[in-house]
Amino acid sequence: MLFHERFMDIALKEAELAVSCGDVPIGALAVMGGEIISKGHNLREALNDPTAHAEMLVIRDSAEKMGKWRLKDITLYVTVEPCIMCAGAMILARIPQVVFGVYDPKGGGCGSVFQILQDPMLNHRVEIISGVREEMCRRVLQGFFNNCRGKRREETSPSPTVHQEPLQRKL
Amino acid sequence: MLFHERFMDIALKEAELAVSCGDVPIGALAVMGGEIISKGHNLREALNDPTAHAEMLVIRDSAEKMGKWRLKDITLYVTVEPCIMCAGAMILARIPQVVFGVYDPKGGGCGSVFQILQDPMLNHRVEIISGVREEMCRRVLQGFFNNCRGKRREETSPSPTVHQEPLQRKL
Repeated sequence: MLFHERFMDIALKEAELAVSCGDVPIGALAVMGGEIISKGHNLREALNDPTAHAEMLVIRDSAEKMGKWRLKDITLYVTVEPCIMCAGAMILARIPQVVFGVYDPKGGGCGSVFQILQDPMLNHRVEIISGVREEMCRRVLQGFFNNCRGKRREETSPSPTVHQEPLQRKL
Repeated sequence: MLFHERFMDIALKEAELAVSCGDVPIGALAVMGGEIISKGHNLREALNDPTAHAEMLVIRDSAEKMGKWRLKDITLYVTVEPCIMCAGAMILARIPQVVFGVYDPKGGGCGSVFQILQDPMLNHRVEIISGVREEMCRRVLQGFFNNCRGKRREETSPSPTVHQEPLQRKL
């Protein structure tokens, strides 16, 4: 199996762990010299923390484990294009490379809405490798959102016992 | 004293607390309905955490205290223009307003390098009030960096006992 794909498969397994807490399934890994330093998944809902994205948790955990804030030997793997906050954190942490699966056209900070990682005005650039296990990463996300929509429809659709009467009256 | 200035003075006192840890003096407050919910200062060096900016600490602390990640009644006060990561976090936390002192032309995410807070592609906008206690906020930062430069000069300048001899030999 190819190098990046192997790590992305582990990030995908992490992503799936987010669902049990009602969180959007996004997983991330920090890898150094072929070894996993840290792995994590989105915990925004579980922790009630707007900053608890998979990438942020992995960056903070790696810095703590390594005892330094400059993570200049880390490759960050993440199933979905990092948002603006996470892209900004990568610049601050001097991470040299990010590998992600699928682009996020609504909030991505690595080319979709903004291109934070390769701006000449900033004091650091991050190499981007995108499209790794793209189809699988997209499917995990879509499955989650389809499931959410299904649940909302169930919650808002008229229940036969409660709503049939008013509907009949209208006729 | 004017409303915003009063809170910015408290953020400036927070900023000064960062210096004792060798951190860049930036302070922040989260205010709701005229009351301070959280205050904090930059702790990147102290915690070895690249994400431990004053704003991030205050956002996370406020969310924890309020038990929710949507901080839609919070005004964030910060002595310096938030960076890209912190601006991204404000969007994610649905913060409606930020008040800051001085712009950061090298890394600011609220107009200097990027304008994250008012982009029509994102699902939230943040009102910006800038220039509050601007001169004082600039002075606190400049004082810190001038002091750092002074220390570096002291460390790198030739010590009379060690270096005078080789210098004399060159003559």
